[in-house]
Amino acid sequence: MVSQRLKKDLEFIVELDKMKSIFRRTSVIGEDRQEDDAQHSWHISVMAMILSEYANENIDTCKVIKMLLTHDLVELYAGDTFCYDIVGNMDKRDREVKAADKLYGMLEEDKGKELRALWDEFEEQKTPESKFAASMDRLQPMLSNYNNNGGTWKKYNVAKEDIYKRISPVKEASNELWEFVEYMLEDAYNRGLINH
Amino acid sequence: MVSQRLKKDLEFIVELDKMKSIFRRTSVIGEDRQEDDAQHSWHISVMAMILSEYANENIDTCKVIKMLLTHDLVELYAGDTFCYDIVGNMDKRDREVKAADKLYGMLEEDKGKELRALWDEFEEQKTPESKFAASMDRLQPMLSNYNNNGGTWKKYNVAKEDIYKRISPVKEASNELWEFVEYMLEDAYNRGLINH
Repeated sequence: MVSQRLKKDLEFIVELDKMKSIFRRTSVIGEDRQEDDAQHSWHISVMAMILSEYANENIDTCKVIKMLLTHDLVELYAGDTFCYDIVGNMDKRDREVKAADKLYGMLEEDKGKELRALWDEFEEQKTPESKFAASMDRLQPMLSNYNNNGGTWKKYNVAKEDIYKRISPVKEASNELWEFVEYMLEDAYNRGLINH
Repeated sequence: MVSQRLKKDLEFIVELDKMKSIFRRTSVIGEDRQEDDAQHSWHISVMAMILSEYANENIDTCKVIKMLLTHDLVELYAGDTFCYDIVGNMDKRDREVKAADKLYGMLEEDKGKELRALWDEFEEQKTPESKFAASMDRLQPMLSNYNNNGGTWKKYNVAKEDIYKRISPVKEASNELWEFVEYMLEDAYNRGLINH
């Protein structure tokens, strides 16, 4: 007899399959195919494993990974909002809070709360873990753009100052990674991968 | 000045993008689109977060997650081998060991060894963590098939006894999950989602 708790867990897991069909603006490197939330979440979680040693503060890498694996789940119901879309970002928070209530409400209360707490921590951006997690989330699409002839930077004509603003969490999270970010963005600009 | 170590890490991370283009046999639920290694690795890593409480033994969930995030990286060079492909599985181990040497050799020695150890542990299937990880790896595509009108079970005419053999790691890893697996497979058989 499968318990009610496990049944809910399995329904939740099946629901998560839809993350493989939520497409982001960024493309897979070298391909004209947009990446999806599942691929993105996987990539940044592995990045956290590889890059956590460069964090300025002591961080719990395991917590960072769990946060990154689940930080975009609200997009199951709220959809992906392009980071440079000013109008779309006006009601993003409201849409995502409603999505979180619905999604985590699928699970038994203790489990839903535990996962919701990870998302809340990520959203609040107060702890070293959430700041490092945000750095991974921002750095990954930029690495893709850099290796994809400018990718969304060029396609959507994003200004260098807006890119710097978007990637700014890295500055606080890791001096060494920030040094690389500055090198990458200036090189991208000089090579015409960033328009202005 | 970006260190040689970080440079190698970033090249490794960019190389991993190719996981988004290694397609598996299993389809995304409800779609005629094969899932890829990045999506699969993400899904089973979140599954480990959700289902680790059902493990028979005390397990280090963080280690399980790290193992699952990276267990398929060898497929970057060795490709995906369909689990029911007898011929393809004859030289799978050789191809994957060569791939692991190449892949983890991209990193500084200490880091390459650390990641390689996770893969070796997963392959050896001796620790509770590696056994639980294998359970997630086996259960996920079966959940997809079950919710996809039989999926690869029907498409490749896989026998019920071969499916039971493939999913057998769950039996040792978790009594509660095994109870569900038996229910799911018998139900799938009775509903004609498994041919014979």
